[in-house]
Amino acid sequence: MLSVEILGTGEYLPSQCIPSSLFDERWGKPSDWTWQRAGIERRYYATEEETTSVMAARAAQSALDAARIDAAQLDCIVSACSVMEQAIPCSATLIQRQLGLGESGIPAFDINATCLSFLAALDTMSVAIAAGRYRRVLIVSSEIASAGLREDDMETSVMFGDGAGAVVLGPSQGGACIKATHYETYAAGAELCQVRAGGTRIRVRKHLQDFLDGSYFEMHGRRTYRMAAQKLPAFLERLFARSGVSPDAVDRIIPHQASAKALAHIESLLQLQPGKMVKVLATRGNQMSASIPVTLHHAVTTGEVKRGDTVLLLGSGAGLSLGGAVLTY
Amino acid sequence: MLSVEILGTGEYLPSQCIPSSLFDERWGKPSDWTWQRAGIERRYYATEEETTSVMAARAAQSALDAARIDAAQLDCIVSACSVMEQAIPCSATLIQRQLGLGESGIPAFDINATCLSFLAALDTMSVAIAAGRYRRVLIVSSEIASAGLREDDMETSVMFGDGAGAVVLGPSQGGACIKATHYETYAAGAELCQVRAGGTRIRVRKHLQDFLDGSYFEMHGRRTYRMAAQKLPAFLERLFARSGVSPDAVDRIIPHQASAKALAHIESLLQLQPGKMVKVLATRGNQMSASIPVTLHHAVTTGEVKRGDTVLLLGSGAGLSLGGAVLTY
Repeated sequence: MLSVEILGTGEYLPSQCIPSSLFDERWGKPSDWTWQRAGIERRYYATEEETTSVMAARAAQSALDAARIDAAQLDCIVSACSVMEQAIPCSATLIQRQLGLGESGIPAFDINATCLSFLAALDTMSVAIAAGRYRRVLIVSSEIASAGLREDDMETSVMFGDGAGAVVLGPSQGGACIKATHYETYAAGAELCQVRAGGTRIRVRKHLQDFLDGSYFEMHGRRTYRMAAQKLPAFLERLFARSGVSPDAVDRIIPHQASAKALAHIESLLQLQPGKMVKVLATRGNQMSASIPVTLHHAVTTGEVKRGDTVLLLGSGAGLSLGGAVLTY
Repeated sequence: MLSVEILGTGEYLPSQCIPSSLFDERWGKPSDWTWQRAGIERRYYATEEETTSVMAARAAQSALDAARIDAAQLDCIVSACSVMEQAIPCSATLIQRQLGLGESGIPAFDINATCLSFLAALDTMSVAIAAGRYRRVLIVSSEIASAGLREDDMETSVMFGDGAGAVVLGPSQGGACIKATHYETYAAGAELCQVRAGGTRIRVRKHLQDFLDGSYFEMHGRRTYRMAAQKLPAFLERLFARSGVSPDAVDRIIPHQASAKALAHIESLLQLQPGKMVKVLATRGNQMSASIPVTLHHAVTTGEVKRGDTVLLLGSGAGLSLGGAVLTY
């Protein structure tokens, strides 16, 4: 049990709204076909001016405002994104500069666990706060999924949206705490969800066509779903065992908004009463690492999550990884 | 003070030896011109088969052997590299698979602070071990700097080499401990060392030429050196103040092997006796994040660092960041 509190949450939604009707028209499908099929009515795409760090800084400022903390009071800035803004330097540095803190000296580094980067960062930085290493930590996840979507891939092109979510963490000021975190990686599934380009594996100047082909997000949807579904029950048992909380005692579930099918699977597995799970998929799509902090922000601002509630954060992502946290908000 | 021990260290040196005479010939310079000028006699480049994760797994296995720990006993795998192998999934996942642990469930994620990734990971994961979150953590830094070098850039093309370094961390079994860590980021210097491409900022399919141009490492060497030199004295004061150790009490300094000039500057600033600083620059070049763990491994295997020694790890990197750790090895 870590005496750590989420002091504030924030979101930034990019400016281009992409309704699902656009996909219906692209593929000559009847009205609402995409919405019905994917459970997504619209998603938002970043313009080229809305870079990873620009969106991250907006979400961060909103979380800082909610926490009533000045950016200069932070003592650590963690970027928790899947895909970087550029190869060097790390994204947290660019976010520090966007926040006007370029001369501050505040430590800034990235934690990357693809779609579960936010959970990996929450886990790691909560331990650091509880140990007194830091007192005010910004974790921000900002994603431009649209940059990697193939227009003719019907499954992935409708599924993802861009955006950013942030939290400010600090020592608990009341009853808030992190009861348990748990994380498992099964790299046997590394090829199920990938972007092969973007690093040193494919050299762009030597293998241009391979690089261009590899710059799209490739997903084996059915195999990913199956592998995650197969691992999830034992994962949840281990997470709940660590937390000392029974699944019935959870007030709200904030899942990674992977897909309508994934959300329905978790609801059925945990035999959830309707409304216990917070969903923003229909209006944002799968925002990769930003999905969990954005959903949490939504739940906090709508009152779906209140102080004292027992909350389960849960997700699976490329890797293949499963991650979760049980906390008292 | 964290009761954490470096249980084993390892290195992997890629197979292509690139002597500095090659650069003398390229530019029609006299024999030994490059070596004299850069303080580097040779460096090693990875072949296309020697990917980030292949090199990382070799260095990791060497560190596991030194620690007499089986890979399956790890409970966390952290990739601490500047540049990823591919955009998705994170490099730690690919390293987990290379180690034959793809079905293990061992948590795997990346910590990225460019050239100081190893220090940021050591800092963060030592806190996690001391807090009991993990017991056996692999940190591995693996870099293919050669993928981003411009042949006609005389300064950077001779300076960098590829390679991987790793450590296994665990709770202290004797007198070893981490006395203090310290980290500062000044993103005002974000443009001094960068690779603009490789992320979402420049879209390869929309702006191909810009992407190709941006895929090289760009460095303002003099401005970087000046900014780091200006920040270093106060940084060191803060690091030593946190550690309770005086600079005189340090037995060995393991610096990031940034450049001959940077190493000479630290020696002069700390008024070091000859031999106190461990150097591998001449035979490896600047290996980015791998530089510190590789230098540490060299010092441990040559006996330059022994159990009980007070050791200072220190570096500056893109960001611009400064990082350090004072430990009892």
